[in-house]
Amino acid sequence: MGGAPLDFYFDFSSPYGYLASHRIDELAARHGRDVEWRPITLGVVFKITGAVPHVQVPLKGDYVRRDWARASRRLGVPFTLPQKFPFPSGPAVRAYYWLRDQDAAKARALAKAVFHAAFAEGRAISAADDVAALGEKVDVAPHTLMAGIADPESDERVKNEVDTAIARGVFGSPFIIVDGEPFFGGDRLDEVDAWLKSGGW
Amino acid sequence: MGGAPLDFYFDFSSPYGYLASHRIDELAARHGRDVEWRPITLGVVFKITGAVPHVQVPLKGDYVRRDWARASRRLGVPFTLPQKFPFPSGPAVRAYYWLRDQDAAKARALAKAVFHAAFAEGRAISAADDVAALGEKVDVAPHTLMAGIADPESDERVKNEVDTAIARGVFGSPFIIVDGEPFFGGDRLDEVDAWLKSGGW
Repeated sequence: MGGAPLDFYFDFSSPYGYLASHRIDELAARHGRDVEWRPITLGVVFKITGAVPHVQVPLKGDYVRRDWARASRRLGVPFTLPQKFPFPSGPAVRAYYWLRDQDAAKARALAKAVFHAAFAEGRAISAADDVAALGEKVDVAPHTLMAGIADPESDERVKNEVDTAIARGVFGSPFIIVDGEPFFGGDRLDEVDAWLKSGGW
Repeated sequence: MGGAPLDFYFDFSSPYGYLASHRIDELAARHGRDVEWRPITLGVVFKITGAVPHVQVPLKGDYVRRDWARASRRLGVPFTLPQKFPFPSGPAVRAYYWLRDQDAAKARALAKAVFHAAFAEGRAISAADDVAALGEKVDVAPHTLMAGIADPESDERVKNEVDTAIARGVFGSPFIIVDGEPFFGGDRLDEVDAWLKSGGW
């Protein structure tokens, strides 16, 4: 790989994060880069910024629902909003990092499974049970994954990741950092592509 | 022109609106479309959405300052944030519509002059005097423009425009409506371009 990995910050409950997840690896690979997937719990960040979830904002709520459907059509990926939305993503994030520290490929596969269950199947993946059951998709026994989610060290690991994200200026999902340069928003992947191609401007 | 004009909603105090203003006419023209420039006063809209100006949001404030500078470099246009920012844009909006109803070309030239003064020269164009003085740039005597700004009908005209914008779902700047299809954000011009090219998806 010809450079440092891109940092791909997102929340599992973020449709724009889900949409970006379908493009980011291939985009980075075209430039010889890997991607470090870094799920975070945006609720913690929103306490600092005062932001509220898009769907709860008058006018904007209607727009984003339309935009998510439109963007998924363009990308050719399924899209269904879970009935319970946004959903707490803490258990999924704990499972991700617990697995990440043992097997990066499986952790990424788990992240994709969570996104798929949430936004292709429309199931809020909020409870530890929901996440543990997805272990089967990535060859990890659900009871093993459940133990990882419940491990107090997983909680500490997530806290550190979120603190680091905030220290790096992350305030939304997706948020991509390329060689220290921050890009916010699902509609910025083409800009990230241009940045990687040109080396910046 | 081969279709209805695009509606280009923006606030004169919006850097993303300023940046989009440099691309929107040429983009539309490539598809045989005209553009109706529709400045609004976002403060009224923010009372509905509860939004606060970007620069006042922790973490996001730092990001947008960096993003505006970066986007302007890419576009090759000057960018300076006025010391007083955001600034109230009511007088500029009143002047715009007063002139628009007499001479669309001069009104657009005035809009460009306001944006240029605000974000190329870094001068908050908030007072009626500031706006009136820009009349000289578009061949309208400042005292004539001042009378237009002070005309109670201008105020009514602006209220109607803002009410219509809200009824159409406009909640930020820039906000572009193409044949009824809404696109929000300065980073959506390429998407508008693709939409016009393909006829939608």
